[in-house]
Amino acid sequence: MKKIRIGVIGLGGRGLGLLKDAILPRENVEVIALSDLYPDRMEEAAKAVQEVSGISPELHRDYHEILKMESVDAVVIPAAWEAHIPIAVDAMRAGKIVGCEVGGAYSVQDCWELVKTYEETGTPCMMMENCCYGREELMALNMVRKGVLGTVVHCQGGYHHDLRAEVSFGRENRHYRLRNYMNRNCENYPTHELGPIAKILNINRGNQMLSLTSTASRAAGLNEFLKREKGEDYDITNYPFAQGDVVTTVIKCAHGETIVLTLDTTLPRFYSRGFEIRGTKGMYTEDTRSIFLDGVHNKYDFDWKPMWNNVEEYRKDFEHPIWRRNLEEGVRGGHGGMDWLEFDAFFTAIEQNLPMPVDVYDMAAWMAITPLSEQAIATGAPQAIPDFTNGRWTMREEEPCWHFGLANVCEE
Amino acid sequence: MKKIRIGVIGLGGRGLGLLKDAILPRENVEVIALSDLYPDRMEEAAKAVQEVSGISPELHRDYHEILKMESVDAVVIPAAWEAHIPIAVDAMRAGKIVGCEVGGAYSVQDCWELVKTYEETGTPCMMMENCCYGREELMALNMVRKGVLGTVVHCQGGYHHDLRAEVSFGRENRHYRLRNYMNRNCENYPTHELGPIAKILNINRGNQMLSLTSTASRAAGLNEFLKREKGEDYDITNYPFAQGDVVTTVIKCAHGETIVLTLDTTLPRFYSRGFEIRGTKGMYTEDTRSIFLDGVHNKYDFDWKPMWNNVEEYRKDFEHPIWRRNLEEGVRGGHGGMDWLEFDAFFTAIEQNLPMPVDVYDMAAWMAITPLSEQAIATGAPQAIPDFTNGRWTMREEEPCWHFGLANVCEE
Repeated sequence: MKKIRIGVIGLGGRGLGLLKDAILPRENVEVIALSDLYPDRMEEAAKAVQEVSGISPELHRDYHEILKMESVDAVVIPAAWEAHIPIAVDAMRAGKIVGCEVGGAYSVQDCWELVKTYEETGTPCMMMENCCYGREELMALNMVRKGVLGTVVHCQGGYHHDLRAEVSFGRENRHYRLRNYMNRNCENYPTHELGPIAKILNINRGNQMLSLTSTASRAAGLNEFLKREKGEDYDITNYPFAQGDVVTTVIKCAHGETIVLTLDTTLPRFYSRGFEIRGTKGMYTEDTRSIFLDGVHNKYDFDWKPMWNNVEEYRKDFEHPIWRRNLEEGVRGGHGGMDWLEFDAFFTAIEQNLPMPVDVYDMAAWMAITPLSEQAIATGAPQAIPDFTNGRWTMREEEPCWHFGLANVCEE
Repeated sequence: MKKIRIGVIGLGGRGLGLLKDAILPRENVEVIALSDLYPDRMEEAAKAVQEVSGISPELHRDYHEILKMESVDAVVIPAAWEAHIPIAVDAMRAGKIVGCEVGGAYSVQDCWELVKTYEETGTPCMMMENCCYGREELMALNMVRKGVLGTVVHCQGGYHHDLRAEVSFGRENRHYRLRNYMNRNCENYPTHELGPIAKILNINRGNQMLSLTSTASRAAGLNEFLKREKGEDYDITNYPFAQGDVVTTVIKCAHGETIVLTLDTTLPRFYSRGFEIRGTKGMYTEDTRSIFLDGVHNKYDFDWKPMWNNVEEYRKDFEHPIWRRNLEEGVRGGHGGMDWLEFDAFFTAIEQNLPMPVDVYDMAAWMAITPLSEQAIATGAPQAIPDFTNGRWTMREEEPCWHFGLANVCEE
């Protein structure tokens, strides 16, 4: 069987991690090219490739050289946020299948270009949103599809992750977040947890995000952190960071559902994706790892504590088939197994010529939240969310069982 | 010592409960008048008054008769939402001190009238927001005042309470909620948890709420509930309720803080006020009853479960003095003691001629969120929040120690 030959463009922390944990261990994939602006990153990655596979990948500072390689079937793009869409567009034009890491867009126009390029070229493009493959998110999806939570009316989620060190020391770490936090104020990282929520709400397949409001708090977290870590005299300790500490974006959907999305990365806290699904028959909530089912749990209405962590009792009935298999086979890769599963889906779709489970319409709609949030914060006015399917969302069917690229599991 | 002689206007479930649990047991208060539109309610309440105090209160269907009684010092108003401001205004004009139950306003104009009437008459008026006296809320306030959470940047709270039965059976229960849910779509009950948050953020005393967005989800919860409980043929089973199931309101304050306020009363779930305070040094979060302090809890960043319920460890250091005394003396009254404490504050302020701890400016600002949310949902546009202090918020000092009407405790 022919192996999938790929290039990896962007070899910072995320790129190197994915390479080692989610790509190189695969027997059906060969990494034959690497690109990064920094030679040391390329060399470190090349060493890893060689050690595992014996292959010496081509190294190119300019990713266009990789796109010119006839032997390359697909590219994976864990680059800086600013580079995602330009590289994805160039790759589609070069006929290279795209697996693009997450992040927000910088303009709605870029999202359109992504879609139009896909429609012109037909080159498959997947957004690698690993949280779509999270165990909790997939279990909630499974419960929704089985009707256990009733009609879904409201969803919440966010990226609650203390990144003060990563952002503040962005120069030492060569990290793109610093320049973004210095200059922009927006929901800069929407796809955790919009991705899994959009799948639950059938966005682009019978449903659509129509409009949003977005409100940013003041920025205080980074300055106080830098003062403590580096002192009053450090050059950016008193820098007026543009990015608010907490950004709350509220999205309204075509069938009246609401989504509350939160960016929360520069204040002290524990990690959470704040995932919550509210239906007419029940709810799933991540922070207490609990499920409320109407008619079952009402006696705990005023003392929910005994039900904290009750999600474990429901694994038996509602564990998603993808995760059932994953646990049987042994969880692999980073981020608790999500990274492995998303790349499973990506490579399975390539091998079997299936539609991408997170396609270019999803990618455009989710990434557009960033510039729209930026506009909403800047102007104070709600923003309309474009329909990147150009009306086809009313006709596109709900995603079939092989949706996550693992048809055999779903058919069990 | 002269007793405070009061009338109680509104004797539904809340009025009767307050009377029995938070008012009648007091030695310094005499209930000498009662009013309600329903005679049976007045009679039941009168019986309770007589049993406890031996007094036969005057009963008046028309509350104006109570306002004419020279012997009445103050009135407590646990009436229907629509009646709160009109009765409060009439009472202030009649020189009767007002303790008014919570709820939203129906117009911003009404909030202005409340303020202007107070300014003309000088009659004290307190909003009886019991959650300001919640144990968790006061502990968080205490931590904020002590600087433990750093600069407060973002707060959340809401009224997460499954009221499907109360609303749906509002005719049988003679409850005002039903007509509101049938006809209006807004944040109809903002003061849990805006009250405690506004106190933490010093709203009206050096800070101000500037603007809000408000987004309502579809309404599905009541129809599905009625279908299950009463069947398809029941007269309001398929009624097109105006009130969305979940309403998310995002408020921006003068110093850049954001407040996310949620109304969530017609879907199945456990009770919560979703209280969360986010500062540059730490957070308090109600749902897992936990406190995160920077430099202390960071090692639990990716597994917060062991810290669930850790709030108990901090009682020793941060229990609010009001609650310390309350626990020593024995918790009394409804809603876990909050009702008792708020009436303590109210009657103490009357006796000692102190400013009301939740005054008419707080009341107007908090109640105005309802019509402003209604306007925001109806028009899709953000709304400016009026400054009911007319600029004096920049001069009014932070509330002093006797803020909650319990000076001796605070001074300890």
